[in-house]
Amino acid sequence: MASRRPESPWPPRIDLGKMGFQFHLIKTEKEVGARLGKVITGHGEFETPAFIPVGSQATIKSMTSDDLIEIGVEIISNNSYHLYLRPGHRIIEQLGGLHRFMNWNRPILTDSGGYQLFSLGQLREISTDGVIFQSHIDGSRHFISPEIAIEVQRSLGADIIMSFDECIPYPASYEYAQRSTNLTTEWARQCKESHQDNGQALFGIVQGGMFEDLREKSATDLREIGFDGYAIGGLGVGESREVMYRMVSHTALLLPRENPRYLMGVGKPEDLINAVKGGIDLFDCVIPTRNARNGMLFTSFGKLVIKNAHHADDERPIEEGCGCYTCRHHSRAYLRHLYMAREILALRLNTIHNLYYYIHLIKQLREAIRRDRLLDFCQEWQEKREEKDDLQWERTG
Amino acid sequence: MASRRPESPWPPRIDLGKMGFQFHLIKTEKEVGARLGKVITGHGEFETPAFIPVGSQATIKSMTSDDLIEIGVEIISNNSYHLYLRPGHRIIEQLGGLHRFMNWNRPILTDSGGYQLFSLGQLREISTDGVIFQSHIDGSRHFISPEIAIEVQRSLGADIIMSFDECIPYPASYEYAQRSTNLTTEWARQCKESHQDNGQALFGIVQGGMFEDLREKSATDLREIGFDGYAIGGLGVGESREVMYRMVSHTALLLPRENPRYLMGVGKPEDLINAVKGGIDLFDCVIPTRNARNGMLFTSFGKLVIKNAHHADDERPIEEGCGCYTCRHHSRAYLRHLYMAREILALRLNTIHNLYYYIHLIKQLREAIRRDRLLDFCQEWQEKREEKDDLQWERTG
Repeated sequence: MASRRPESPWPPRIDLGKMGFQFHLIKTEKEVGARLGKVITGHGEFETPAFIPVGSQATIKSMTSDDLIEIGVEIISNNSYHLYLRPGHRIIEQLGGLHRFMNWNRPILTDSGGYQLFSLGQLREISTDGVIFQSHIDGSRHFISPEIAIEVQRSLGADIIMSFDECIPYPASYEYAQRSTNLTTEWARQCKESHQDNGQALFGIVQGGMFEDLREKSATDLREIGFDGYAIGGLGVGESREVMYRMVSHTALLLPRENPRYLMGVGKPEDLINAVKGGIDLFDCVIPTRNARNGMLFTSFGKLVIKNAHHADDERPIEEGCGCYTCRHHSRAYLRHLYMAREILALRLNTIHNLYYYIHLIKQLREAIRRDRLLDFCQEWQEKREEKDDLQWERTG
Repeated sequence: MASRRPESPWPPRIDLGKMGFQFHLIKTEKEVGARLGKVITGHGEFETPAFIPVGSQATIKSMTSDDLIEIGVEIISNNSYHLYLRPGHRIIEQLGGLHRFMNWNRPILTDSGGYQLFSLGQLREISTDGVIFQSHIDGSRHFISPEIAIEVQRSLGADIIMSFDECIPYPASYEYAQRSTNLTTEWARQCKESHQDNGQALFGIVQGGMFEDLREKSATDLREIGFDGYAIGGLGVGESREVMYRMVSHTALLLPRENPRYLMGVGKPEDLINAVKGGIDLFDCVIPTRNARNGMLFTSFGKLVIKNAHHADDERPIEEGCGCYTCRHHSRAYLRHLYMAREILALRLNTIHNLYYYIHLIKQLREAIRRDRLLDFCQEWQEKREEKDDLQWERTG
């Protein structure tokens, strides 16, 4: 019956090994040193700073690939922990890798699963060899080592993969942070050793808690091992904004100029702006998508809570002038109705808007760096949020 | 601050009174008398037989208007009961009516709310004047009369509106059915009297339970009152398929040739085919959308239950050759993964496929009538479902 099978409509398998991974620093902004760069992968290139929407389970919740492309998304993340457990990395490999599996033909980054393993799984045993844990789905018992984390990510076939790490909880003692950071470094070394020269870029993850000397030690050790890019992990975990920004700029200065710098799991629009100022190139965060599903929408005036009663008869879009599908097609009144009626479409329309807001913000930041006017842009951005508002915009809390 | 408001992007308000409603019978199929027709409304025209996806709360669950247009949907329904309670018909009227509110620029039919009122609301008192009931959302007390049902539907501004009726439960005694049918007829008379000549088409609803003489009485009385179209209500409520088909063809024969005939709330693909044979022009049903959300997908080979384990590594689309977005972009393996992981995107991709299947089936039926080969089509359709299938298609239960 093979004759009934048409040509596969899914994206072609791409041999990443032939394409390689490159990062080019296009320019450094005059006043604060923010960076404009370009990442080249086997699945296309994109400029940095870049925002990476989070697709934990081979889907950005409620979005099709076409939605993401229309929004202007250039790279997405996926999560090894989730996909290892369900549907299983072997099935995805058999089907030609993540790009084909979810029909996303642009770059993908996979997290190693360390973060989810520690936050979702039930831990049994941790050692330099790896972690024994129980699945949060069915309680089944698993072992993940740095080598296995790389092997899982190799099966998934992302363009950028992450080394295995422990995200230090906050607050943590110096002793805990030191021990954990040393473990992450040891795991990073094992990841580098297991990593094949297959075109996937391997990033190391700087930990160190909120201790500057541990961050320094971590960064130095990782640089010695040598990675294609460097992530800053363990931030946005409960520390104050001031501490976070200090850690970001302190750590960024310790990282090589010629590699991309990725701030993991951060954050709100103002966090992105501050981190870009501090020299960060890549971000991923669930905030735009998760908040969208909770009815919290981002605008240049601050946040808008769609369930608020005064939107009930408001025929304006979320933000006038916004180019997203939602703002071009639907009123706040309709969006509020969908949200109050718990309709599925609310999740989707809100997600489109928030992702568009983030992607648009990143594009504005790139442009400001290109024109050496980042500080001016930041001031204008802040002033717009502080404008007196007689049109019932909610203010950022 | 009025200068900040751009031109409204929402569909323009249309004065239905200037457009009128027309039904043209294009042809009657030679062998079985199935009908090919055309409905013209202020929001555009479409051919019949037509299938009307159900949008209870001003949304076809998970779909944007653009999705529906891509699928080929030509008319949708909405529910007065739901919209009266939330967000309220006055708000929708104030915002320019349902078409503007949900940004759907093609025809809309609204149900009177009778069915939902009896199935969802908590009834307090029924009389020829109307019904006192409590909201299923917040327990608030409301009164709906035939006049109010028409007024609510006038506010919503649909192209086709329905008279107020009681859907007789199954089974029901002859006495109950007789009393209820007389009440529905009386309410229909009041609806006709309240209905303004505003361009909205008003349909009467034939009831009568499973009693042929009551169906006959109901149809005769409604014809005397005179409506723009006639619906057959109270079927698909638990009776056998044989009884349903007998009631449909019996009732259809009693209805005027020059008006559209609408079978309410029915049904499965085979029900549509049989009812078209019996002379029905319009259908609405939650089956394609609700089943989609439960992972039950329609194909020309029968149903496909996406959660079944053997789809886990199947890279074929739901149905090879299907032109829907889902089949053109995603494999069964991916759809199964999304469903098992309870991802929102599963609901949407499945809904797209099932609606496409229904719309495509209706288009095939139109073509078969046009070419006087409806019986041949039906036989081919049935044979395809009965084909032995070594490619692991599930069979219709």
